[in-house]
Amino acid sequence: MSDLHWNTAITKIEPNKILVRGYPISELLGKVSYPQMVYLLFKGELPNENIGKMIDAILVSSVDHGTTPPSALSAITVASTGAALNASVAAGILAISQFHGGAIEECMRILIKAMDYKKTNDCTSAEAAGQIITDYRNAKKRLSGFGHRLHTDDPRTKKLFSLADELNIAGEYVALARDFEVILEKSLGKKLPINVDGAIAALLCEMEFDPTFANAFFIIARVPGLVAHIYEENTRYKPMRKIHPTDVSYDGPQERKL
Amino acid sequence: MSDLHWNTAITKIEPNKILVRGYPISELLGKVSYPQMVYLLFKGELPNENIGKMIDAILVSSVDHGTTPPSALSAITVASTGAALNASVAAGILAISQFHGGAIEECMRILIKAMDYKKTNDCTSAEAAGQIITDYRNAKKRLSGFGHRLHTDDPRTKKLFSLADELNIAGEYVALARDFEVILEKSLGKKLPINVDGAIAALLCEMEFDPTFANAFFIIARVPGLVAHIYEENTRYKPMRKIHPTDVSYDGPQERKL
Amino acid sequence: MSDLHWNTAITKIEPNKILVRGYPISELLGKVSYPQMVYLLFKGELPNENIGKMIDAILVSSVDHGTTPPSALSAITVASTGAALNASVAAGILAISQFHGGAIEECMRILIKAMDYKKTNDCTSAEAAGQIITDYRNAKKRLSGFGHRLHTDDPRTKKLFSLADELNIAGEYVALARDFEVILEKSLGKKLPINVDGAIAALLCEMEFDPTFANAFFIIARVPGLVAHIYEENTRYKPMRKIHPTDVSYDGPQERKL
Amino acid sequence: MSDLHWNTAITKIEPNKILVRGYPISELLGKVSYPQMVYLLFKGELPNENIGKMIDAILVSSVDHGTTPPSALSAITVASTGAALNASVAAGILAISQFHGGAIEECMRILIKAMDYKKTNDCTSAEAAGQIITDYRNAKKRLSGFGHRLHTDDPRTKKLFSLADELNIAGEYVALARDFEVILEKSLGKKLPINVDGAIAALLCEMEFDPTFANAFFIIARVPGLVAHIYEENTRYKPMRKIHPTDVSYDGPQERKL
Repeated sequence: MSDLHWNTAITKIEPNKILVRGYPISELLGKVSYPQMVYLLFKGELPNENIGKMIDAILVSSVDHGTTPPSALSAITVASTGAALNASVAAGILAISQFHGGAIEECMRILIKAMDYKKTNDCTSAEAAGQIITDYRNAKKRLSGFGHRLHTDDPRTKKLFSLADELNIAGEYVALARDFEVILEKSLGKKLPINVDGAIAALLCEMEFDPTFANAFFIIARVPGLVAHIYEENTRYKPMRKIHPTDVSYDGPQERKL
Repeated sequence: MSDLHWNTAITKIEPNKILVRGYPISELLGKVSYPQMVYLLFKGELPNENIGKMIDAILVSSVDHGTTPPSALSAITVASTGAALNASVAAGILAISQFHGGAIEECMRILIKAMDYKKTNDCTSAEAAGQIITDYRNAKKRLSGFGHRLHTDDPRTKKLFSLADELNIAGEYVALARDFEVILEKSLGKKLPINVDGAIAALLCEMEFDPTFANAFFIIARVPGLVAHIYEENTRYKPMRKIHPTDVSYDGPQERKL
Repeated sequence: MSDLHWNTAITKIEPNKILVRGYPISELLGKVSYPQMVYLLFKGELPNENIGKMIDAILVSSVDHGTTPPSALSAITVASTGAALNASVAAGILAISQFHGGAIEECMRILIKAMDYKKTNDCTSAEAAGQIITDYRNAKKRLSGFGHRLHTDDPRTKKLFSLADELNIAGEYVALARDFEVILEKSLGKKLPINVDGAIAALLCEMEFDPTFANAFFIIARVPGLVAHIYEENTRYKPMRKIHPTDVSYDGPQERKL
Repeated sequence: MSDLHWNTAITKIEPNKILVRGYPISELLGKVSYPQMVYLLFKGELPNENIGKMIDAILVSSVDHGTTPPSALSAITVASTGAALNASVAAGILAISQFHGGAIEECMRILIKAMDYKKTNDCTSAEAAGQIITDYRNAKKRLSGFGHRLHTDDPRTKKLFSLADELNIAGEYVALARDFEVILEKSLGKKLPINVDGAIAALLCEMEFDPTFANAFFIIARVPGLVAHIYEENTRYKPMRKIHPTDVSYDGPQERKL
């Protein structure tokens, strides 16, 4: 051991053996899903299958949002210069930052703050939500996780919450998020519904993830989408074309049922 | 429409509706897994459940390999300077390149070349493998996907192939890869077994992925591992420490069973 | 003009004419130096030659610091995987962050805060320095720009300040930085000299740069160093070697005079 | 020394002493320019002042090209998401790749190939140029460094070459590039003039740089431009705006003289 010796608690590598958090990867293969592995890597323990299904659904919900998000645009802009796939993906990920994807982490911090307030002050979650909403209004800060420019009634939100009910994951944080929605409508006089970022935030809180992982879930979810856009750029368009951020039509398969 | 108008066939975004390759994301949620979504995004069609399980296992097999791969080292080196999580992940992905992860794509191209040779020359896959091995030896090029510095008998390979049998995915490419192994042993006088990259390459060929997606599968698989290392760096170590690439011990949970 | 029309005040491109901040680049060529161009791009006006020389010296002072900074290590780690030069440089730049290079911006903000305090309270710069030092001590925050782990008497600092005197650039901010040094020694009982980051911070304040440009100067200065390390890695070492962060010797030319 | 011991020939770091290629940085400060340092770092020796001036002019010539190049667009797209300055710069650099900036390296390789042909076959440089042009036409490959979509008579090219004459740097490679221009016009029946990439390529050949440094010169030149665009984005526009790639006007200072 040198004076730079250090330790890691994630993965042990030996000849012909790879232990992730103590479990041999070869035994996990086929029994544990990739979304469960994300949990194992982030939290150190294997989750039950329901949590695996919840994380799977969270990843599916954010897997792509077309060509207009800045992550897609920076990825295809870089791809269009002849850069390697990994460099194009990296450029996309550099755009998953405060204002793009960052709402999940901010909303988690808001919900955790409200839950702390509720417990400290022994009040209802509606009262806690009201207090935080007032604080944010006074500080002129935006409440991340509520309202959406385009999706006023995001079907992903409803579906994620109904899955969370089925999987016995919805609990006090989902209830709290719903209280926020109610109080926001009362105080604003108009509906500002929980958006998909807010729904994911509430669910990550239910599963007790540290908010610093929020961005990681969004990145993991979105990489396949970025790759699909990069591949389309490379196979369908000439290098160095001018990429319009909004004047783009969809010419893929028409709406179809499962 | 401006003169920069363009089309995308991946995802259609409308108010309250997101169609990925024609399927409403809200209907996919809870019914289709993230690994199936990867297939849908890359190939345009939904795969059956078996293919979803195969992709899931491929992702699980490559989810982490400890702290020594260059992607982990560049990610934690950047994390250690106080960079944001997404920037640290991007630095890790920039290292997933020709010599790190690149073997999957190279092995896919080798297998496809051998399969073309077999079909063109109407010979056995063993003969095709022998021809390609000779060509590579004459050109003094390394055959990616066979042999490993550390894992001489990688349990991930066996498990991936047995899963592929169970899921009815193993076919002519898996057989071809096994022929390569046999011919290599005969011609070298020592065993150079299919490694995990070679196994993944054969399976991606069975599922008819374009080889340019090989790197994408490795990136998707590895992002959760990179995030775990970045989180450990940020929560366990001081900024700007000197990160030794090999003098590191594992102090996580001891080997345990599922 | 579309509804996305926007404006830029930096560079006008016409056939056979490129105007940077109004000046035709072809007329600047040979008359105006690259360091003067940096000023022109950042501030919108051409600086006099003395300012050009000062920026030139700032860039030279930070052009490289060997193989141990995280930016060099992440760049060569990525280079070692066979990545392209630009991807390796990008990985290096991702490490030029809060704890590596970030001291310049932090020190600029400290000096500006002290200068504001001085002007608001009509006191001496020594009194202002004393107040800020007390505030930082009470808040248990580190004063960036003073002291260095390795260089207790950094010859670059002295040289930059003597050049600033010659070029008539040293003024109230350099004086203020020196007052900080004196007060720090008095209050700590030991010397905590201005380091090269602190010197650059004082000089950028003298030239009235917005502190958000501090990181840019460090990045510009360091890119040639990163490139030299990447080139050495690619031409001297095998791919995927294990890169020790400190067990490295210098085997270049011995010390020599200009 | 550990078994990972390695050597670097670039910079020696000792307490209070930093030697770049053997020269103490504190002695270089104020005497040697940043462009000369680039040469010292890349080639190991200090160049004379003329070479310093030539590199300075090359850097100035490529310092910015407005908002339309993909490097500017990916940098401001990432900046617009609230990413840090260094992450935005990195995203810009990831776009400086094969089709954007890559022409310099390709043109250097063409000129070196023609020069080798000339020396091997003891022919005129016009004959060598003719042979390479024929080879490229037969292989249906584009000759990088000649012709430009927008600048049919790039004033930067003329100015760089006249400076190269003044500085005694123009030699056989500049003559060769001019022969290419003449032969191209004869064989195509229309002018395809040397563009700025071709001019820089010829000059880097004159200074005997390895072609792998070509991209580095472009990156170093362009970083200040990227920073100016990032700063403008952050100070002038709202986060997450839709960035049109061409519908942009210049509203900076009108054309002015030095």
